[in-house]
Amino acid sequence: MTLKYYHAEPLANSLKSMAPLFEKGLPFESIYVNLHKFEQHSEWFTAINPEGQVPVLDHDGTIITHTTVINEYLEDAFPDAPPLRPNTPEGNARMRYWNKFVDEHVMNHVSMHGWHRMVGIIARKIDSGEFEQLMARIPLPDQRKKWMVARSGFSEEQLANATEKIEYAVDKVEAQLAKTPWLAGETYTLADINFYSHCGMMVERMFPEMAIATRAPRLVEWRDRVTARPAMRQALDMPDHTEPGLRTWSGHVR
Amino acid sequence: MTLKYYHAEPLANSLKSMAPLFEKGLPFESIYVNLHKFEQHSEWFTAINPEGQVPVLDHDGTIITHTTVINEYLEDAFPDAPPLRPNTPEGNARMRYWNKFVDEHVMNHVSMHGWHRMVGIIARKIDSGEFEQLMARIPLPDQRKKWMVARSGFSEEQLANATEKIEYAVDKVEAQLAKTPWLAGETYTLADINFYSHCGMMVERMFPEMAIATRAPRLVEWRDRVTARPAMRQALDMPDHTEPGLRTWSGHVR
Repeated sequence: MTLKYYHAEPLANSLKSMAPLFEKGLPFESIYVNLHKFEQHSEWFTAINPEGQVPVLDHDGTIITHTTVINEYLEDAFPDAPPLRPNTPEGNARMRYWNKFVDEHVMNHVSMHGWHRMVGIIARKIDSGEFEQLMARIPLPDQRKKWMVARSGFSEEQLANATEKIEYAVDKVEAQLAKTPWLAGETYTLADINFYSHCGMMVERMFPEMAIATRAPRLVEWRDRVTARPAMRQALDMPDHTEPGLRTWSGHVR
Repeated sequence: MTLKYYHAEPLANSLKSMAPLFEKGLPFESIYVNLHKFEQHSEWFTAINPEGQVPVLDHDGTIITHTTVINEYLEDAFPDAPPLRPNTPEGNARMRYWNKFVDEHVMNHVSMHGWHRMVGIIARKIDSGEFEQLMARIPLPDQRKKWMVARSGFSEEQLANATEKIEYAVDKVEAQLAKTPWLAGETYTLADINFYSHCGMMVERMFPEMAIATRAPRLVEWRDRVTARPAMRQALDMPDHTEPGLRTWSGHVR
């Protein structure tokens, strides 16, 4: 059995499917894809994932993409490894409810702020002719648009809307953690890993004006519980090749 | 064992979880929620689903919401009923890949055109004072915004963007059907039901300018195969309380 995991820095999507690999104790070959050099749109990578996006799981030649899909795949394919899915009908439904919420109502909004602060700077550093060439290589039309908007800058209205959605999510998670220790109930699941990777781990640092410590103390305590897990630590300790001045998501830059 | 299904007309979300109930031969109590009278935001209904949205599944008192979650719940809770999930790790991943695609990149775009043509007319018929009262009762902020935009009208730019996404989806489905008889592979799954309910069943009628018959002949053949399934026929035969002049999604009005 061989698992290969193609990924970028240990945050957001790349962290989200790496944490389960460590939690489940599954040995894998780590293959770093350098987003700062647009390797995800290169020929060698789009031969593996035609959508040109990380991360990708290669399990004995079977290619699985999209983190929520990868993570349920690991549950299905390795039923003897420690589970991250409740495996009761109701528990799975609670977990999938939260996964959908993070995928559809959280991820893109934090991502927009991250792109605005970091990817916009990268995009504006590229010369015009070269930028158009890079754009032409992006397989997904939506992704191409996002790069072009990142270069010209997201509008104040777009950023304010994203902030509002993040505040809504923070309050929703805080309310859930008043009822259950983890998002989907009594056990740590893929839902916790999902919200942590896309929002929980960085929300306090990226949005100091939200005063997360007083607004959402349970979220902070939950975040520290997730961060302290040995598997999460292993994942977070993977190399970060981002230039220090651009570590808006992963470091101490706003 | 008692199953109650709270739903509106047999199309889009309400159809999507009703078809599996019939496919799996699970007897259920049908409870019609009249969206034309805003029953989904009424006190009796938000006591069941605080998000104020149909459909809802009540299984012996366990409340499950969101159609993709409901449909996997039925697979988990009734493993002896005819499956609509491949139940191999790779097959499930293929199905979930398509479910994510429909949920995140198709549903809202067809829905915007439907809202523009039908819900906008309903919203504009309501007096101003009454409209504000109705809006105040909508639990989800996003849903409230959607109603307000529907009343004032979606912009040409928004509608054109939605059309572009639908064309992208049609071409993607057509390409997949050149490779496999169903979206996720060799068997009919929840992915087929998802795309059919949100786009496949109505796309040719709603968007004649796309010339679906020539652009996507495999999609048309696939659609007819889905429509011919006895379970889908049973679901489609459920009552439609929409005013005949407003049947943009479900009838012959554009």
